[in-house]
Order: sequence, then structure tokens, then C-alpha cells
Amino acid sequence: MQKVHAYLNKEYPRFLEELKEYVSIASISAQDDKKQISKCAEWLVAHIKKIGLQVKLFKTKGNPIVVATTRGITKPPLKAISPLSRGRKEKNRRHFLVYGHYDVQPPEPLELWRTSPFKPTVKNGKLFARGASDNKGQNFAHIKAIEAYIKTGTPLPCDLTFIIEGEEEVGSKNLSEFLRKNEKMLSASGVVISDTAMPELETPAITYALRGIAAMEITMRGPDRDLHSGMYGGSLENPAHALAALLATLRDKKTGKILVDGFYDGVTELSRREREELHFGAQDSESYREFLGVKCLFGEKGYSHLEHTTTRPTIEINGITSGYQGKGSKTIVPSVASAKITMRLVPHQKPKNVLMAVRKHLEKNCPETVEMKIESGHGAPPFLFEPTNTLVAAARRAAERVWEKQPRLIREGGSIPIVNDFRDILGLSSLLAGLALPDDNAHSPNEKFELANFKRGMAFSAELWMELSSATPIV
Amino acid sequence: MQKVHAYLNKEYPRFLEELKEYVSIASISAQDDKKQISKCAEWLVAHIKKIGLQVKLFKTKGNPIVVATTRGITKPPLKAISPLSRGRKEKNRRHFLVYGHYDVQPPEPLELWRTSPFKPTVKNGKLFARGASDNKGQNFAHIKAIEAYIKTGTPLPCDLTFIIEGEEEVGSKNLSEFLRKNEKMLSASGVVISDTAMPELETPAITYALRGIAAMEITMRGPDRDLHSGMYGGSLENPAHALAALLATLRDKKTGKILVDGFYDGVTELSRREREELHFGAQDSESYREFLGVKCLFGEKGYSHLEHTTTRPTIEINGITSGYQGKGSKTIVPSVASAKITMRLVPHQKPKNVLMAVRKHLEKNCPETVEMKIESGHGAPPFLFEPTNTLVAAARRAAERVWEKQPRLIREGGSIPIVNDFRDILGLSSLLAGLALPDDNAHSPNEKFELANFKRGMAFSAELWMELSSATPIV
Repeated sequence: MQKVHAYLNKEYPRFLEELKEYVSIASISAQDDKKQISKCAEWLVAHIKKIGLQVKLFKTKGNPIVVATTRGITKPPLKAISPLSRGRKEKNRRHFLVYGHYDVQPPEPLELWRTSPFKPTVKNGKLFARGASDNKGQNFAHIKAIEAYIKTGTPLPCDLTFIIEGEEEVGSKNLSEFLRKNEKMLSASGVVISDTAMPELETPAITYALRGIAAMEITMRGPDRDLHSGMYGGSLENPAHALAALLATLRDKKTGKILVDGFYDGVTELSRREREELHFGAQDSESYREFLGVKCLFGEKGYSHLEHTTTRPTIEINGITSGYQGKGSKTIVPSVASAKITMRLVPHQKPKNVLMAVRKHLEKNCPETVEMKIESGHGAPPFLFEPTNTLVAAARRAAERVWEKQPRLIREGGSIPIVNDFRDILGLSSLLAGLALPDDNAHSPNEKFELANFKRGMAFSAELWMELSSATPIV
Repeated sequence: MQKVHAYLNKEYPRFLEELKEYVSIASISAQDDKKQISKCAEWLVAHIKKIGLQVKLFKTKGNPIVVATTRGITKPPLKAISPLSRGRKEKNRRHFLVYGHYDVQPPEPLELWRTSPFKPTVKNGKLFARGASDNKGQNFAHIKAIEAYIKTGTPLPCDLTFIIEGEEEVGSKNLSEFLRKNEKMLSASGVVISDTAMPELETPAITYALRGIAAMEITMRGPDRDLHSGMYGGSLENPAHALAALLATLRDKKTGKILVDGFYDGVTELSRREREELHFGAQDSESYREFLGVKCLFGEKGYSHLEHTTTRPTIEINGITSGYQGKGSKTIVPSVASAKITMRLVPHQKPKNVLMAVRKHLEKNCPETVEMKIESGHGAPPFLFEPTNTLVAAARRAAERVWEKQPRLIREGGSIPIVNDFRDILGLSSLLAGLALPDDNAHSPNEKFELANFKRGMAFSAELWMELSSATPIV
């Protein structure tokens, strides 16, 4: 292992240049620029091939998936594996999947970037570029760790298959079909994903819970065309007004409590121990408020901001649209008003039940004066596992060795629906070992990746495969 | 007068062709196509010159104003004027202004038009084109009546000055300055405007009240950028939610009553006589509902739909915008949410006081969790005159002669701010004798003008000058 770490240190300047090349490709899936998407996937294929892995581009109905495996190129060194795996036949070697994505979010609004999003710039130990943190940089750390094994002739103690998709930012539409079709090839002991956050630079973390999600779009129709508000206003319901009034009923504006019957069904309170663990070493509310750029925080009464974002469900309005939105005024009673909302779910809420409860509430409270249409969108259940499984145990040991500090076990407020796909289609647990920081500006202007996390991430990845291979049977 | 009417009948086919030419010019002020605006103004100048009026194009900071006068070309025929005006010197002849506008609304959405908006099409006695009714067709009827006087050698009993502007659809921004600068030239006994509606094809109408208007834009800011709704949602106020809740406080959703303190200050109830007059011969609520294309009507409890749109004030949301409005979903807590609202005012509300009352209400009810900015926009006081003045009396007699029916005295819900300018700058009363029908689709796709109203409008105009000149002193 010393050789591996020495290689990672020595070659780091080159790795950084390679990462800069990788993030300079504008592989924006939402804008569907096939040329840049292909360019990025092909860059990745060529790069991984040079390292020595077998690599293939899998076509999908959307963007291709890069699949690369160490199978067939490595032999287990007897001295490097634990007594438990010693004596296994090669075909019984453990096999892990490493998931990542090469697509990125759109960079807009461009005027808020201090450097050009696709001209990677290093400043104060940070790499600024779209995709630097989410997810190219984080995933690249794993690729480089494997390169170190191969190039130093250090036998890998297990096999790895990288699955690097190009549609994560647009809902991973074609990943589940790929998993279903390639179940046999993807048979493994677990999935490793670095696409979550650490609480701060010096504190590694394993994420053991994610919120689920349920999306909905509400459309209200009043008159069959926009009407002159002078000539007709006052004699008919204005759908924008009706929608505002309806959305207002969803929440108690003083306590922040959701007022939908059955919304909190299944939601459990944290035990005192869980609560303490969650808050241990967490960011204080004042610096969190400052980071969000708000006058004051606001959330469900009786819970901390950390609980609000991880263990409490919410209803958020993601967008509202109605009538005239240009400059000046246009005096109409709009024909239509609509809102996009998403519910973030916590254990043990079910997307289907929550969608049903919200729909019932909306139908009950919608005035007769308008036509309402409700479309339910995508949903993903919340994700929670006991952070005591062998994947986590191995990751904790590997992280401790690199950061010289016990990693924190954290819950995150976001949703990673593919984690459910890995569980439901392949029967696999995922290890969420993120290298991002809360201020990395994922999805926002001025995205950056801490180069300290890139370095430690590579070292962590190198240690992780050893730990995972020597661990007691995978649960 | 028989010669005049005979001429109008005989030349009608040519007039229609001329009107078609006029409406085929896409003089869309909102889209600021200077070429089409100029083309239209120049077409009008050339056309009116050919008729024999003195005509001039007045430049403004925006679109030019066409000003045409009969002064200097007509002599008062002694037999045609009343005893009261007989003996007046020519320079004491009565002088009236005829106001109209040659600009039109944008035709969008184009896909809803059954015929091309600038390819005028006659079908079932209706002329379909943008501007056919609002306002080219209505105003053209007056121009053609004057042509009939001149071409038949019938002396005009009074002088007329046409003021045809090119910015009515964008707020008549430069008209008041024009009025101020040309006060002397525009000294007159009253203004005649045909830019309002008749209740139905066979019933002429004089409009004696208009609602006023006050506009406002509310902007709420939460976080200083859109935030990931998974990572942060639940711990801060969502400005879209706060805005919806705030807008909901403006109105009692059951009774439709505005809940703003002081909003109804100065509003008077109609007397029984006024109420009866208002409802006499009015459209029944079921056919009105059908015309609006709504499931049911809704308005302030205790008032009819006719009262809602003419004698009761309202607050309408004209547009709301926040967050993501594209296809699918984007899981954000939006940084900003905003709404455009307009209040329609009735006698004797004051725009300034209403704006102040609404502002106070919003400030009182805005949560501390967001920053709110309120911008007050344009305002115009309501307009009401006693429908007993001599302008109205003359118009009633002229209309009765043409339609063989007493015109109705109606209130309209819209606002015509220039009416206030004529009063405040020139001290003139306006006569609102509209030729539009409620289903003319002004501002909407498939605008049309009833050719019966074009014909009767010309005859009415011809009679009107006689009546106005013979009337007792103008009030």
C-alpha cells in the first residue's frame, strides 16, 4: 500500500491536469448537447482504457453509460487479503460497483460566475468549474486510486466495476433499464458512491439516510382565455388568486406545520441518542443562516435546522406561473395558474400515500369556481439504513486512517433515487461516502471542489478496497 | 342630411375596402416596430388629406400623433344650425375633439387566430382583423362621416379636430404632453370617443362611468440564490409560499370581500334607481357565464355580475412568477417570488389612498422571514359624470335616430386614463359612444368588428355633429 500512496502523491500534479481536462467538457445533460455529451463519454473511455481497465460504452435511449471493470486484469495477492477471503477462488473474489456520473448541471446564470464555468481555475486550493465537485471530481478520485494500484503492480484485493452515467442531473431515466438488462454482470457485494457531502473540510462523513421525494404539478383553469381585468374583473374567480389561497392552506404560516391530513403518517421522532449524534459537531445555526443568505431561518416549530433538512418532511413550492410576467403591467384575469411542488419525505413515509394525501387536501380545498388538474410526477422513497453494516464499518476504518478522525454518520436532505434502484433491482446496499463540502455550490454558480478532498479522496479510495475485501461477510 | 346619408350608403363598399387597407397595417405599439407604426400614421395622413381636412403629424418622444381638423374648410349653413348658435361669428363656432388611436394590441397567441390577424377577412357581416374594433374601425366611422359632409358639399355645423394617437395600447405616455403643449389649438366644447362597448348589436349605449386603476408589483426575496430543496428545504422560508400566503390574505375566499383596511373608503352604494337603470336590458348571468367560459361566476357577495364589473372595486392578480417554470421539475427553494396586481377603482376611491392601504396591508402581513419590495405602478382615478350633460343629451338623440331605440346609459369596468387627461388638462368632458360589442375580442385572438356597427356608426356620427351644434350650451 505504501507504493500506492507514494504513486498518488507523486502523480498528483498530473491528476489535477487530467481532472481539469475532464471538467472542461460541457457535458450538460439538461441542455441535451449530444456533441459535448459524446465528447465527455469518449474522453472518459479513452482515459480509463489507458489506465488498463476494460471499458465499454453502453448505449441507452438517452446518453451512453461508461462501464469499466478491473475484472480479468488483477489477481488477488494472498498476503493482502484477509483470512476470510483467503483461499477463495478468483471467481469468488468480492466485486463492488462504483457509481458516478459524467453529466453536469447547466451553468446558468452565467453572469454570477467569477470564472468561466468550463475553464477550470485553481485558486486557494480549490478547483472552480461546473462539475468539479458534482460529480466529476469526486468520482475521478476513485478512478485515480485504481490507477495507482495498477501502475504500481499492487494487486487489487477485489474487483470493481465503474458505472458512470450521463443522465444523473436529468433523473437517471435510463439507468434502471441498464441495471435490469445487465443484472448478471453487475452482481456484486455493494455499491460505493461519492456524491454526497462532508460537514466540513476536516471531518469525513458517511451518509446513512436520504430524504425521499414526491413531485406534483397543480394547474388551475378559470376563463377559457385571458380576460380584460377591467371589463370582467370582479365577476369571476381569478385562478391565480385561487391558487395562492389553495397553496396557503398547505402550511401553518406561524408554526411551519404541514396541514395536510395524514401527511406525517409513519414519520418517527428521533431517539435522544440519534438526535445527539445528528447534532454532534454540526454547523451552528447562525453560520448556517449566513451561508443560505437569508434574514432568518424558518422551519417546523420544535426542531433544529439540521432536523428540518434531514428528519422532517416538507412541502416546497419549486415554481409558480400565471398570467403576465414581462415588464410593466398587463391588465388581465389570467386563464391559467400553475404551481410545481415537491414533498421531501422521511422514514417511513411512502411517496404514494403522501401524494394521495396532498391530492385529497387540494381537492377538498379547491373552490368550485375553477377547474383543477393535478399531475403526480416522479417519486422516490426515503432511504435509511442501519449505519452498522459491514460496508459502513469498512469505510469508517478507511476514512479514519486518512483523515485521522472518526467519520461522522450523517443524514442528508436530498434524494438519490438510484440508491433505491441498486437496492430494488440488484439487491445491493450503497455506501455513501461523499467528498463534497456544503459550500461547493453544486447546481449553483461558482461550483468548486476542494483539492484537499481530491487528494484525501484518492487515499481513502485506495484504503477502502482493502478494508472492504477484508471485512466480515457483507450484509 | 339626406345627401350625407345617401353618400354613406353608396360609398360603403369602398369604405370597407379602405378600412381593410387600414387594418392590414401591423401598427403594434407594444412591439415597437417603427416601420409599421410610421406606415400606418402616414397612411392615415394621406387618407385624411384626400378627404379634404388639414392634417399634420405631430412628433412625440414615442409614436407620432395624427391631428386633422376641419377648421378653415367649412362654413356654417345658417339653416342647419339652431337658433342658439345662429348669428355666432365663425370663430365662435363650436369645436369638438374626436379622439382615437391607430396603434393595436399584439396579435399573439397567433395559433388561436382562425384567420391571419393582418389579412382582414369579412365573414357573416363581421370584419376579422387585429384593430378592426379596437380602435381603427370605430374611429374610421367618424372619419367617413366627415368625408360625407365634405364630398356632398354639406356644410359642417361645427368644427372637428381628430386626435389619433399611436400609443394608446402602451399607456398613452406622450399624449398628456401633447395636450399641454397644444392647449390653445385644442380649445373645444368636448371630446367624442368611440372606444367603448354597446351591450348588444341592436342597443346603442353611452358610457358614463369607468373604473379607475392602480397597479402594483410585489417582490419577495428569500435566499440570495435558488437553493437545493432537498439539502435546505424545510429550514428557511420559501418566498413562493410566503407570497401565496400573503396574496391569500387580500380577500375573503368565501365572500369575495377585499380584506384590506380602508380599501372601500369612499365607495358608495348605488341608489335603487341607478341599480335598476344599470340592470335594465342587461345580459343575463347565464349567458354572461357562458361568454366568459367559466364553470360559474364568482364575485363580492351581495352584488350582481354587472355591479361586480362596474360599481365595485377589485384586486386582481395579473401575473405571478417564481422559481422553475419549464417542463418537468427542478427541485429548488426559489430565491424570488413576485406578483403583479391591479386594483380597479370606483367612485370615489383615490388611487393614491388605495395604493397606500394595500401597501400597509401587505407590510403588516408579510412575514419577517423574507424581504419584500413593493413598487407602485400607474394609476388613474375612476371616471363618472352625470349622464345628463348636453353632450350626452345630443348623443342620445343622434343614436335614437339611427338605431330607432333609446341608447342605454352604462358603466364600464375598464379604465380610459386619457379621459382624465382631457378633463384635467383641457377642462373637457368626454362623450363615450362606443361601437364595439362585448364579443369583439379586443386584445384577444379573432378580433372582429360588426359591419352593421360600422354603418350605423357612420350615420350616428353624421347626426351627432348636428345635434351637438344645436344643443343648449355645453356643460
